[in-house]
Amino acid sequence: MGKRALVLFAHGARSASWAAPFERLRDMVAARAPEIDVSLAFLELMSPRLPEQVAALAARGIDDVTVVPVFLGQGGHVLRDLPLLLDELRVAHPGIAVRAVGAVGEDPQVLRAMTDYCLSSLPSPLA
Amino acid sequence: MGKRALVLFAHGARSASWAAPFERLRDMVAARAPEIDVSLAFLELMSPRLPEQVAALAARGIDDVTVVPVFLGQGGHVLRDLPLLLDELRVAHPGIAVRAVGAVGEDPQVLRAMTDYCLSSLPSPLA
Repeated sequence: MGKRALVLFAHGARSASWAAPFERLRDMVAARAPEIDVSLAFLELMSPRLPEQVAALAARGIDDVTVVPVFLGQGGHVLRDLPLLLDELRVAHPGIAVRAVGAVGEDPQVLRAMTDYCLSSLPSPLA
Repeated sequence: MGKRALVLFAHGARSASWAAPFERLRDMVAARAPEIDVSLAFLELMSPRLPEQVAALAARGIDDVTVVPVFLGQGGHVLRDLPLLLDELRVAHPGIAVRAVGAVGEDPQVLRAMTDYCLSSLPSPLA
């Protein structure tokens, strides 16, 4: 197996501050997997877009790309836009294995951590 | 203290499937806090919107509302739209305490769970 990459795929937004939690996530993942090329890519409004980022990875000799949709909801962006982007990437970069996993919001541990956070946000302790 | 509510505030989307993880989150929170009125409300594209939901809570005799922004990024929706909505709610419902906490994506435990998920999505085990 050659060089592997993990691309955290997020929506993008107009406000630069929006990306901060995603940058933190990228840094946390990179710190725990130093042998993996970890990067962010966006669907719209922010750079790099996914095709641009995968082209950059290809230029660096990466041959295996896992895309993690950092979305809470699984709507049109994850179910329709992302598969189309992946199809285009596979045509553009036939030498690279490109796969995507489910959205982070579907992961039971992420859901559990969000549940804990919701409960901890209540003004007084639960019995 | 009177009756308390927790409102999970999400963006909303055109695709009905988008809301599934949020509904699961609502159910998980409700199961762990049976004494709290737990509900979803949306910024746009889905019902109920936040003002509509808080009006319904007021009609049920709730006097304390905590709004949790179920957003990963902290952009214009969380930093600008939500505070304006909260101001309007406080004017519309002066008898109800309404507060919002930070977005779920800013919570360290949520970030850690997302980090774990990203690492687990790699095709072969890390050394």
